[in-house]
Amino acid sequence: MSKLKTERCIESLLAVFQRYAGRDGDDCKLSKREFVAFMNTELAAFTKNQDPGVVDRMMKKLDLNSDGQLDFQEFLNLIGGIAVACHNSLVLNTQSR
Amino acid sequence: MSKLKTERCIESLLAVFQRYAGRDGDDCKLSKREFVAFMNTELAAFTKNQDPGVVDRMMKKLDLNSDGQLDFQEFLNLIGGIAVACHNSLVLNTQSR
Repeated sequence: MSKLKTERCIESLLAVFQRYAGRDGDDCKLSKREFVAFMNTELAAFTKNQDPGVVDRMMKKLDLNSDGQLDFQEFLNLIGGIAVACHNSLVLNTQSR
Repeated sequence: MSKLKTERCIESLLAVFQRYAGRDGDDCKLSKREFVAFMNTELAAFTKNQDPGVVDRMMKKLDLNSDGQLDFQEFLNLIGGIAVACHNSLVLNTQSR
């Protein structure tokens, strides 16, 4: 049975987080440098033409326990926040037709 | 620039939610029937050989505003919960080697 979209998506989230978090320091957390690399590579569409300070502010907002790093749950909050924003704009577009 | 894993994953979450939520009733929410169809198809690995009541209990737990349906944020909490559980077991396995 081919892997289903939802399972593949969960695996992608695990793999992408691990790829960046495993670069230096704690392999289970994104350091500031790893988070910046992730944002500028994986979510370049959201950081391109943005004031460089935006990634700093995002990191501070996501870092709920203020340990200067993002654990996997804090990382998922970012993905969830972007997905909800996309969903809301899709809904608005559909309603405005 | 080919779509990156994280962007594709966010799109998959939007598409999968829409495919099931759009079946009947409110197109922006998963009814109980739509949620059961989603679980038994997309996440069959988690419901196979399980007591059928498990999906009911999951629905109640996820339905934070108790409106008998799951909106996109409540749906994402499910995906996030599964991803965190998978991540934790990966970390435990790595540490026990």
